[in-house]
Amino acid sequence: MKVSKLLGERFKNAPSDCLIDSHKLMVRGGYMKYMANGIYSLFMPTKRITRKIENIIREEMDKIDGQEVMFPVVMPANLWRKSGRYDSIGSEMARFTDRNNNDMVLGMTHEEAAVHLAKDTAQSYADYPFMIYQIQTKFRDEPRSRGGLIRVREFTMKDAYSFHTSQEDLEEYYQKCFTAYERIFKRAGAKNVIPVKSDSGMMGGSVSHEFMLLADIGEDTLAICSECDFKANMEAAPCIVENISGDVQPLEKIFTPDIKTIDDLHKFLDCDTKQFGKAVVYQKNSDDSYVVVFVRGDLEVNETKLRNYLGVDIHPAQDIVTEECGIVPGFIGPVNLTDKAVVVYDKSLEGINALVCGANEKDYHYKGINIRRDVGEVTYVDVAKTFEGAICPVCGKHSVTIKKGIEVGNIFQLGTKYTKAMNMTYLDNKGQAQYPIMGCYGIGVGRLAASICEESHDDYGPIWPISIAPWQVEICNLRAKDDNVSAECEKLYQHLMDLGIEVLYDDRAVRPGFMFADADLFGIPVRVVISPKTLEKNCYEISFRDKSFKGEIPVENAPAQIKAMVEKLLSEYNL
Amino acid sequence: MKVSKLLGERFKNAPSDCLIDSHKLMVRGGYMKYMANGIYSLFMPTKRITRKIENIIREEMDKIDGQEVMFPVVMPANLWRKSGRYDSIGSEMARFTDRNNNDMVLGMTHEEAAVHLAKDTAQSYADYPFMIYQIQTKFRDEPRSRGGLIRVREFTMKDAYSFHTSQEDLEEYYQKCFTAYERIFKRAGAKNVIPVKSDSGMMGGSVSHEFMLLADIGEDTLAICSECDFKANMEAAPCIVENISGDVQPLEKIFTPDIKTIDDLHKFLDCDTKQFGKAVVYQKNSDDSYVVVFVRGDLEVNETKLRNYLGVDIHPAQDIVTEECGIVPGFIGPVNLTDKAVVVYDKSLEGINALVCGANEKDYHYKGINIRRDVGEVTYVDVAKTFEGAICPVCGKHSVTIKKGIEVGNIFQLGTKYTKAMNMTYLDNKGQAQYPIMGCYGIGVGRLAASICEESHDDYGPIWPISIAPWQVEICNLRAKDDNVSAECEKLYQHLMDLGIEVLYDDRAVRPGFMFADADLFGIPVRVVISPKTLEKNCYEISFRDKSFKGEIPVENAPAQIKAMVEKLLSEYNL
Repeated sequence: MKVSKLLGERFKNAPSDCLIDSHKLMVRGGYMKYMANGIYSLFMPTKRITRKIENIIREEMDKIDGQEVMFPVVMPANLWRKSGRYDSIGSEMARFTDRNNNDMVLGMTHEEAAVHLAKDTAQSYADYPFMIYQIQTKFRDEPRSRGGLIRVREFTMKDAYSFHTSQEDLEEYYQKCFTAYERIFKRAGAKNVIPVKSDSGMMGGSVSHEFMLLADIGEDTLAICSECDFKANMEAAPCIVENISGDVQPLEKIFTPDIKTIDDLHKFLDCDTKQFGKAVVYQKNSDDSYVVVFVRGDLEVNETKLRNYLGVDIHPAQDIVTEECGIVPGFIGPVNLTDKAVVVYDKSLEGINALVCGANEKDYHYKGINIRRDVGEVTYVDVAKTFEGAICPVCGKHSVTIKKGIEVGNIFQLGTKYTKAMNMTYLDNKGQAQYPIMGCYGIGVGRLAASICEESHDDYGPIWPISIAPWQVEICNLRAKDDNVSAECEKLYQHLMDLGIEVLYDDRAVRPGFMFADADLFGIPVRVVISPKTLEKNCYEISFRDKSFKGEIPVENAPAQIKAMVEKLLSEYNL
Repeated sequence: MKVSKLLGERFKNAPSDCLIDSHKLMVRGGYMKYMANGIYSLFMPTKRITRKIENIIREEMDKIDGQEVMFPVVMPANLWRKSGRYDSIGSEMARFTDRNNNDMVLGMTHEEAAVHLAKDTAQSYADYPFMIYQIQTKFRDEPRSRGGLIRVREFTMKDAYSFHTSQEDLEEYYQKCFTAYERIFKRAGAKNVIPVKSDSGMMGGSVSHEFMLLADIGEDTLAICSECDFKANMEAAPCIVENISGDVQPLEKIFTPDIKTIDDLHKFLDCDTKQFGKAVVYQKNSDDSYVVVFVRGDLEVNETKLRNYLGVDIHPAQDIVTEECGIVPGFIGPVNLTDKAVVVYDKSLEGINALVCGANEKDYHYKGINIRRDVGEVTYVDVAKTFEGAICPVCGKHSVTIKKGIEVGNIFQLGTKYTKAMNMTYLDNKGQAQYPIMGCYGIGVGRLAASICEESHDDYGPIWPISIAPWQVEICNLRAKDDNVSAECEKLYQHLMDLGIEVLYDDRAVRPGFMFADADLFGIPVRVVISPKTLEKNCYEISFRDKSFKGEIPVENAPAQIKAMVEKLLSEYNL
């Protein structure tokens, strides 16, 4: 490809709404064009990058016996009604009515479609296991699209669905897919991807993992043990703390005028926040009824863990916490609390003999609360956020660290949720009808491309790994108006292409600084610079985008040498 | 791939709503599964076929300097408002409102998106010409989806858009693309694809061609000259007839009781229908006002030609042709016709000195109508359907033949319709702002696959050309319970795959008749049968799906021989 004919412009500066590096560089580099909130068109370089990623994914899916299929983007609502998700998913799902007044949806995931395709065709246990996958456009009406291709509304995704006759078989396949994912990310050149245990969310199912590319701009928060293998999304990480039980004390009501926050109370009483019981109030989405969570004063509630425990959707309580409801903001405590609220006790309070909490009365707190004595037997559950230095649930050391990550892939053990709902059965070896057990496995293609840019760039542009780079070699013609230089460039361009090398040739008559700035934005691994000066010395100047090499090679035999360089770079990604 | 693990079932019979052969065979063969009207999921074999077609298309598009890009499926309505098509396209376009109440559409074509992507980035004449294309899902809410993948609502399409600074440059590129299309269809193994001149329809623009795969079940009717190169869609084919002018006669009103049709009139008057002026009544969609078309008694009106001439949308008049409107059904004629209707005279009436037409009065016709004398000077336009034996507009012989075809591709010279509407300009070499001139070029991938099946099958299944066949070789293990036979099959399977051959291996313990019926439905070009009998003779049995070869080859050296066969077959499609 010649740059003079390549559609797309490079810019010195990014628009001010590009907040993260990869977004800035991919807009500046002519990789994408904004069309609407979370909707982009992709220029040729991005299409080449994503196609390479897709091919890597396809090869790895085929290696674990995946069958590539194609599901529709537009599906009838009835299919989603069968699984219950037509109603349980909210405005994230785009819906429309077709010309015959049928309700239709745009696919945001394809469990229903996978079961629809497999149903009636895999009727004997002998047909199992199998896995089907597709690489296709999905639409999710995200409330907050951000970060360029990191979080968009329309995206290309590889989604795979496996079907099994036993949990053991699912687990075995799950492990295979786990390994395939590790290979995919390595081959695509993502350096810092780690698998973490995750919450299964709207997919249903139990065991699941997310593959997280570690990055400060990541939306996900991860708990990672520095001493052992424990790695989990915050939402799936138990919060384990050691409590100092302390002495049993008498229950004592104290006057705490206008002392409504833990901070105020800490200053007022001059005691450790670990002795406080903090109340956090939520409301159920369904009926706005209250949920009061007590957690140790120094900790926070993790809403997803709370949501999973309650089994219903909730939101933080608004200003509508009124006295009629029996809840006194700033002075909430377990003793004499209204019975209209659901009360949840976090594990962090278990075993503390004397707690300070609100007295459910304006300007008063209790000291010396002993939950068993003053409230009765309660169940303690884990709904707190873990934190830097918390106890690792696996090795037991105070070694939890907190990191940020971008979710680039996920794998779920779904169980029979969808096969049951859609009545897909097979006959087992005793002739009994059984529901197949499913797993599902996703990778966001565009997000992976942008994430790799996020971890692999400098101030001047992306540094694409050669396995997904839009082109392998860029030729920079530093004197396009010099016929001799241009002829030499054109010869090398043709020669390299004949050798099967992917070449971008910058044939424009522009200043060297301008050309090099563009080359940095293209992020091509191998750069060949040709100028009157290099030709005088009868050589080309070669440099790698990642700065690991810079030197001159003689013109004679240059194509073979460049090819060897490309092959050596590629070999690092051939697992 | 082993058949025992391949998802999808083969059937003896097709559902009764499968009306055409390719649809029947692709349902019977486990190629696709119906999800909703015009919406299908595709099993692995179909995905493999369409991917091969896509790769052929991609290679040919890249050869003519195409840049592969990616446009969104979901687009903001505002983009389509700019071109005017948000309003001009009806219920074929799916529309929905997103969570923020923005009107969105599902792309049915991407002219607007192409201009959006190219606008502001190709600002100098030196940046031209260029072509961008994508291969992606489209949704068109067809009123009548039919024929399996031939006419669906959701489909994969290659759509390309070229931009030029002069009409000459567009024409030159148009010709390149024309040739690329011919190569694509040949390489994909479509035998009977011909380019025909076409009507540009909703795309706008002037010159356009459709690539038609000739097939009796085709929805398009084509006029093809048997003597010269003339080929056109009926909608774009001039209807040329020779009139016998005859003698001038006096105008005479005749009593024709209850004689309302041309047939009745022909019997009643016993004269040639070529002397009749037939009236056909339409109404404008906008206001239901009437359009009366006069055409020679033996001819029919082509609605598209009429629509293009009028420049507005029309429909055949309903029963609502009432006397108040001045139109007397069955007795309509040009003399004394109400002035409330738009009147159109077809060229077939030009020069006839004495016509028989209705008298605009119940039970009366006129004889001897001379339009110039009795009505005045009128304009004759071409709105009639051409027919078998009509005069060829190119060579002038009576050599027009009528064929049916499936449109598998189309190319349009769009002009500046979209660049003007969306205000995309570049500076020419004099520094003046100009609108780029566009061309656009489409191929339906799934439709092409189904069309090839339609022209290349027998009663038992598809006969896939090897260039797009889901696999190149099928191994049939005729005695899967025989360890010796199975080991031999497995060995060959692995060996062929190691040689880079795509192999489907039927490893199931089923009766030979059952296995062969399935093999016919798979339609794989080369079949290798292994049984105790063939192994006794130390050979394999080879046959081609198209019946052009059947024979035995010795086990020793078989893989290399099979590879040579595959390569020879493939070479026929390497242009």
